Amino acid sequence: MAEHPTSSPPYEVGEGDALLLIDLINDLKFAGGEKVLPWAMKLRTPVRRAAARFRRARLPVIYVNDNFGRWRETFEQIYRHATRRGARGQLLCRSVKPQRSDYFMLKPRHSAFFCTSLVPLLEDLKAWRLILAGIATNLCVLFTAHDAHMHQFPMIVLSDCCAAESDFDHNIALSQLERFCGAAICRSDELIFTARGGRSRPD
Amino acid sequence: MAEHPTSSPPYEVGEGDALLLIDLINDLKFAGGEKVLPWAMKLRTPVRRAAARFRRARLPVIYVNDNFGRWRETFEQIYRHATRRGARGQLLCRSVKPQRSDYFMLKPRHSAFFCTSLVPLLEDLKAWRLILAGIATNLCVLFTAHDAHMHQFPMIVLSDCCAAESDFDHNIALSQLERFCGAAICRSDELIFTARGGRSRPD
Amino acid sequence: MAEHPTSSPPYEVGEGDALLLIDLINDLKFAGGEKVLPWAMKLRTPVRRAAARFRRARLPVIYVNDNFGRWRETFEQIYRHATRRGARGQLLCRSVKPQRSDYFMLKPRHSAFFCTSLVPLLEDLKAWRLILAGIATNLCVLFTAHDAHMHQFPMIVLSDCCAAESDFDHNIALSQLERFCGAAICRSDELIFTARGGRSRPD
Amino acid sequence: MAEHPTSSPPYEVGEGDALLLIDLINDLKFAGGEKVLPWAMKLRTPVRRAAARFRRARLPVIYVNDNFGRWRETFEQIYRHATRRGARGQLLCRSVKPQRSDYFMLKPRHSAFFCTSLVPLLEDLKAWRLILAGIATNLCVLFTAHDAHMHQFPMIVLSDCCAAESDFDHNIALSQLERFCGAAICRSDELIFTARGGRSRPD
Repeated sequence: MAEHPTSSPPYEVGEGDALLLIDLINDLKFAGGEKVLPWAMKLRTPVRRAAARFRRARLPVIYVNDNFGRWRETFEQIYRHATRRGARGQLLCRSVKPQRSDYFMLKPRHSAFFCTSLVPLLEDLKAWRLILAGIATNLCVLFTAHDAHMHQFPMIVLSDCCAAESDFDHNIALSQLERFCGAAICRSDELIFTARGGRSRPD
Repeated sequence: MAEHPTSSPPYEVGEGDALLLIDLINDLKFAGGEKVLPWAMKLRTPVRRAAARFRRARLPVIYVNDNFGRWRETFEQIYRHATRRGARGQLLCRSVKPQRSDYFMLKPRHSAFFCTSLVPLLEDLKAWRLILAGIATNLCVLFTAHDAHMHQFPMIVLSDCCAAESDFDHNIALSQLERFCGAAICRSDELIFTARGGRSRPD
Repeated sequence: MAEHPTSSPPYEVGEGDALLLIDLINDLKFAGGEKVLPWAMKLRTPVRRAAARFRRARLPVIYVNDNFGRWRETFEQIYRHATRRGARGQLLCRSVKPQRSDYFMLKPRHSAFFCTSLVPLLEDLKAWRLILAGIATNLCVLFTAHDAHMHQFPMIVLSDCCAAESDFDHNIALSQLERFCGAAICRSDELIFTARGGRSRPD
Repeated sequence: MAEHPTSSPPYEVGEGDALLLIDLINDLKFAGGEKVLPWAMKLRTPVRRAAARFRRARLPVIYVNDNFGRWRETFEQIYRHATRRGARGQLLCRSVKPQRSDYFMLKPRHSAFFCTSLVPLLEDLKAWRLILAGIATNLCVLFTAHDAHMHQFPMIVLSDCCAAESDFDHNIALSQLERFCGAAICRSDELIFTARGGRSRPD
């Protein structure tokens, strides 16, 4: 059952790749959110830069975000709520603000795949590999990666674009992703955007 | 496999019931849409009245609507698109305009259940029976009813709140729903809203 | 939403195609089963021949069958039950008996896709188009085709390998499949098995 | 997002509970299987005893097992394969051999929920809480628990009935289950089978 990535960074990124940003629009109000905050502050610059590179390369940037039980709200309203005055995640959310060309999706549970339209969207976009970033590494990122692996999407997880309650939680989750989900782990500056549009899908 | 409803109208509606409005926000631009139009015009008043009764009874009204492949848009933007000047479904959409207290959900395919958050929403709302309305009777309503039946939701389909390309298509679909999905069929004025909040869920 | 097949029979079949046999292992004990019986008797020869041709071409034959609520039984036990002395479907089942090289799957509801491993199996087999046969045309075949269409599998439905309670039910279902699921309809002898292994998957 | 169990052992078990045995029919031939072996040998007695207690209480024992890509085989054939002469998991499998009254299910991926009929089976059994055991704690047990949590099943994980490659892996997984899946963790002898049939489902 254990599967190991066979290559090492830097990794080429191009056609067929999509950046998945998980729960970054977040007021961090959940239990433990105060511990995630300092780590989340650090991922702002790497996430912003990674997303900008995906956009420049015309590769899809997809925000998949908890709806926090706010069933009547749109993604925009969730964004406004998470950036309200005094919200713990205000600075985080503003730093990684979605752009017009991005895709967004609300999820009712931890995984970006559970009861969402993510699979049809990826099919429509002809995206077959996922680059993962978000919070928390050992929660919604891990849940999402488990599902992505079962759906047989290859993955790259950007270590400097994920955050958890502690360094220990973060590292254990990355190790789980590498050992059991076949995920390649690298820093966001270890991605190389190829002009020719990346590798083709392995059969 | 065939299952038959055992009761007859009028049907009591109350706690545990949810009104599902399928693809009513629609520019009717699909092939055959021009044939659906006259039938869709007729369902406007019954739908508006039925929705108003559900709202007054504080029962959930849920719009589940095609995203028409417009992956970057919110339900509000889809509404604006479907009511743009000159759109075939403009009058229809305006007549059944969602209200603040309603729920809405975009679906990527025909069924309201396929790759959407409908099941978790219904669980959160403690809704266990569905009242169905929308277009087209023999397409998205039928696809949705098939899934609802496999998920074991009892159903009432409001015949005067559904429309298809022809009377024949409409009636055949209603017959299929009654014979094979255990759905009860009635007109919207055959629903009785009970003060005490409807029947309790059968075990 | 309406989609129409663009070609006409005969249809070439080859690599990437899989034959799906729906609920053929069946004691026909359900309400209406006695009406299905005479039609089911007629599909025995066409189904047996079609399956044989698929096997000879080394293309997968997949039985997806109701478990009839017999949760503790294997497909083999279901077969034995359906062919027990006096069972209404005894002759039918024996005529279309699965072979060693076939695949089989039990389903808990109407659709072959609902809560089954069909999608992973098709992925493993690299099957991307489905050839459908089984009973009843307007029930489990239709439910399955609806799901197949939402999963974006192209389909061919073999009209002489499906059966329903009546000619009317059968024909209405075939018409629904053709008009709204993009299915091509043909007789089983209108399939041509190509030496070179069929068309490649359209992008 | 973090959720914590509010009670402590011993835990009452009764009506509505089901024992889920994950990947125990296993030749342990996967990478790392040799490291799991000694831990798997230790869980044999606790699993056998726990299963016997469930059976005596007439509560469902459900084997959900990898199909190891052997798509044409039944659970029985998988059992025979895993207990073949010389198989690493031979002793393990024999010790936890399924009984006539048990349920079994083959899964194509890690989670017992992914593309299987587990949810409909649990609904039919009216089981609403899961007692988890199996291998590996940090792989298929963890994947399954993630899905169970998203489906909102409360869980008890039997620590002495799970095994992983190392004590570290095992304990980290149990901690993840407790912290983020709301699972209660206990030893199998900390379950109390109540004559009256357990607690009723919380609303």
